[in-house]
Amino acid sequence: MDLQRINALIREVPDFPKPGILFKDIFPLFQDPIAVEMVITHIVNYINTTIKDKVDVIVGLDARGFLFGPLVAMRIGAAFAPVRKAGKLPGGVIQVSYEKEYGIDIFEMQEDSIKPGQNVIVIDDLIATGGSAAGAQQLIEKMHGNVLSFIFLIELEFLKGKEVLTAPVYSMIKA
Amino acid sequence: MDLQRINALIREVPDFPKPGILFKDIFPLFQDPIAVEMVITHIVNYINTTIKDKVDVIVGLDARGFLFGPLVAMRIGAAFAPVRKAGKLPGGVIQVSYEKEYGIDIFEMQEDSIKPGQNVIVIDDLIATGGSAAGAQQLIEKMHGNVLSFIFLIELEFLKGKEVLTAPVYSMIKA
Repeated sequence: MDLQRINALIREVPDFPKPGILFKDIFPLFQDPIAVEMVITHIVNYINTTIKDKVDVIVGLDARGFLFGPLVAMRIGAAFAPVRKAGKLPGGVIQVSYEKEYGIDIFEMQEDSIKPGQNVIVIDDLIATGGSAAGAQQLIEKMHGNVLSFIFLIELEFLKGKEVLTAPVYSMIKA
Repeated sequence: MDLQRINALIREVPDFPKPGILFKDIFPLFQDPIAVEMVITHIVNYINTTIKDKVDVIVGLDARGFLFGPLVAMRIGAAFAPVRKAGKLPGGVIQVSYEKEYGIDIFEMQEDSIKPGQNVIVIDDLIATGGSAAGAQQLIEKMHGNVLSFIFLIELEFLKGKEVLTAPVYSMIKA
């Protein structure tokens, strides 16, 4: 796995979205389809070698989780289901509130997107404090799904986001 | 192409996001990975048989264009580049304002996401009035890219969105 090639395609943007934050921009990666293919193959290899149970659903967080989630889901023959902020998803939804750096936000999933007993993997581009991933886990568990694993392209280890999650976390790149 | 299978997976939600609008919800499609595969194969087949030039970049609109764009891009070995609302993309961006039903919104692309002369296809789940697709075309042309085609899963024909676009439009399902 050519992690250097992947790393070189993650652009650091200082002071975005606010002063003091060094943003990890994953969009340059998508200028190189072979690099994206390598990332997806790496993630699928992790799933195939580590997750013993059949994966029923890949859950992706709006919006960058939508880039990776369907690619992985198609490769393993799983469904894909979205987590979005309140008001974005049509039809019946379930909600959870989660803590952000400044205040509270509300996440939703469609109420039929996970069936009781289904095995789920949550995918996002990056884990920071883990708040949004924890919100996704709460939603999935409200629908009686089992979170088998969280997968991130990048983990900001110093923020210890893993500690708020109660399923295994796999991240390709530690930063 | 089993369009009935695809059609059956598009859920109509009345009065979303506001009263009087019959929303076409494409998320049930993603509960059926084989149906998604059929959609992607159908789109790739359209590209391979109709577009004579090499496609360099697939552009997808936030957020549902992010679901289809990378899947198509990976299949044809193209880059993927996002269009997002103002303030969401890090680094240098270019902007365009576009008319919505009630007022003006601002779209952005990263300034290095299209190189001069590159051939581009714009993908989204649905074309209604065509305002956001036209905004994407303006952004691409500001960067001196060539829009070869627009591809939509669903076209709301009665809204005549095609008429505001100056490149060919292909839609799988007319509604």
